[in-house]
Amino acid sequence: MKREFIDPWSANLPENHKDIIKKFGLEKFDVRDFPKPNLLMRRGFVFSGRDLKIISDCIKNRKKFYALTGIMPTSDKIHFGTKSVIDQMIYFQNHGAETYVLVADLEAAATRGVDLKEARTRALEIHIPCYIALGLDAKKTRFYFQSENNDVRNLAFELSNKATLNEYKAIYGNAEPSRIMASILQVADILHPQLNKSMPGIVPIGIDQDPHIRLSRDITNRAKKFGFILPSSINVKFLPSLSGGLKMSKSEGNSLYLLDSDEEIKKKVAKALTGGRKTSKEQREKGANPDKDMLFELFRQHLIKNDDRLTKREEDYKKGKILDSENKEYATKLLIEFMHDFRRKYEKARRKTKRLFRD
Amino acid sequence: MKREFIDPWSANLPENHKDIIKKFGLEKFDVRDFPKPNLLMRRGFVFSGRDLKIISDCIKNRKKFYALTGIMPTSDKIHFGTKSVIDQMIYFQNHGAETYVLVADLEAAATRGVDLKEARTRALEIHIPCYIALGLDAKKTRFYFQSENNDVRNLAFELSNKATLNEYKAIYGNAEPSRIMASILQVADILHPQLNKSMPGIVPIGIDQDPHIRLSRDITNRAKKFGFILPSSINVKFLPSLSGGLKMSKSEGNSLYLLDSDEEIKKKVAKALTGGRKTSKEQREKGANPDKDMLFELFRQHLIKNDDRLTKREEDYKKGKILDSENKEYATKLLIEFMHDFRRKYEKARRKTKRLFRD
Repeated sequence: MKREFIDPWSANLPENHKDIIKKFGLEKFDVRDFPKPNLLMRRGFVFSGRDLKIISDCIKNRKKFYALTGIMPTSDKIHFGTKSVIDQMIYFQNHGAETYVLVADLEAAATRGVDLKEARTRALEIHIPCYIALGLDAKKTRFYFQSENNDVRNLAFELSNKATLNEYKAIYGNAEPSRIMASILQVADILHPQLNKSMPGIVPIGIDQDPHIRLSRDITNRAKKFGFILPSSINVKFLPSLSGGLKMSKSEGNSLYLLDSDEEIKKKVAKALTGGRKTSKEQREKGANPDKDMLFELFRQHLIKNDDRLTKREEDYKKGKILDSENKEYATKLLIEFMHDFRRKYEKARRKTKRLFRD
Repeated sequence: MKREFIDPWSANLPENHKDIIKKFGLEKFDVRDFPKPNLLMRRGFVFSGRDLKIISDCIKNRKKFYALTGIMPTSDKIHFGTKSVIDQMIYFQNHGAETYVLVADLEAAATRGVDLKEARTRALEIHIPCYIALGLDAKKTRFYFQSENNDVRNLAFELSNKATLNEYKAIYGNAEPSRIMASILQVADILHPQLNKSMPGIVPIGIDQDPHIRLSRDITNRAKKFGFILPSSINVKFLPSLSGGLKMSKSEGNSLYLLDSDEEIKKKVAKALTGGRKTSKEQREKGANPDKDMLFELFRQHLIKNDDRLTKREEDYKKGKILDSENKEYATKLLIEFMHDFRRKYEKARRKTKRLFRD
């Protein structure tokens, strides 16, 4: 039997989200458990997780819990799909979670050779302001750098004897020293809020990060001395690239980035994979398929919040009432609107970030 | 061909120091290179090293260099053999080295599950004062905890991608995550003084620690970005246990510890392995063998500093003029004198340590 791995450092990701639930022992996400679900929850893009009930109980009973996510400061660009994860962070923040956002500068140094100073500048100039501009409350969010967090770094060493080399190989398929160190540090990131206060925590992720969650849970089970509660996770479907690649990312050809210019947006949308026909005539006659259209994926996940308007547009597209050119124009308009608003918020957030990290 | 490993975490150590020089590509120590050599250097107990010339040149030309050693805070007891290493640290300190002594609390946590607070208390109450009492200058020595040193912890992550899993296996024979993390951290300890200032450094060790030196040098060679100078090492022969075990240690039956009471010393010396004969009569007639006598090992390495007096006693022992009972009495007397003096210095050093680490 061929072993199956999810390699969190690779762009080769399993294709079918439903298979994954079964194969890796995840729970299906049940939207009825979460009060006032957000767009991605309502529309089925949040599809699974681990120990979700613990977190929904915290929300319902107003008990303390935390949500955590990370910034990987390897590039100046943040792909648009990041919004899907931050939307979940915002949901939990609005529902009472202590929120932590770590800058994985030591992980970037270990696995990609990124300089710590470079990572710091990048995080302060771009990533943290973008995360705030996406809607995280700057005052309520605890941003930190791995390279400056004593609890996290020391906890990583304390937890290291709770994992074995064979376990690394079983979870990741390989076990190079830099990856071992980066993973253990991530486990420490995920668990460290519990050092001061016993409370459940949740990590919104793309499914590619699930190996870290499994490792964190295995280690939690063994590190009895700390009495940590098993960390929960919540999985958001990937936002595909505009060319139909599994997810927006630096390795996918046609991906949108936060802070893209109007020109870039126009160019990228023009080249997007659509569900349309070869000719306008054919499309008017036979209709088109919104489920194979990357712009509809964007509409559903982020750009059209009103359900009726979305359904109407889907129907019109199916019936051939909307042509690709028109749909692209509309997508371009919505994206440019989004980006202008985002850029304004980003500029404001940069000033906020400077104040937050003034030494 | 069977691979040979030195496992720095095991008590199974190679038996013949001479073989080691060849097998592991060490340099022989040449006493003529080092001005005013200390006792262990003069008497051949300092037997090898790596890049020793670089350090002797620094000493002769009054160039900057550093010496570094570590404290493993896994136990309240420090075996007497530690003095051999500290004697080398003192030599380098007196010959112009910046001296660093790290408390390997994160290594102890990773490889032995030692609690960080427990390690801290132990280091402040026992280890650091003992190291000062052995003769290190408290004011000139930079004591630090791994768990509090930003440079060291961050450098470990930055260096982690310069070693491979196979290399770990080749050097250590195994590669569990906790050991990988502990070793990389040790490499960072060894190299971190060079972050602020380019200078050679030397690490006095027992040969069991040579794998760490080899790993440090391999990583130094690859981490071009940092421009580190290859760290030198100097190897001191083990002080055997009183029962003739390869080295004094917690796992050896009859080992002396710093701070042993008069009673403990008497008991331990009484049971020591000697080079004597079965009966006093036989010993008077045929003489005895100081080379198989553990007390003479102590005399040579630490207790009798005057060469003439040592030679005289060896000759007398060989000729049967000295019986074991008398020799044991003499060893007990010297050890108790040493320990009384040491204890007085230790009490003073405890107060000094408190002032050094007052928060």
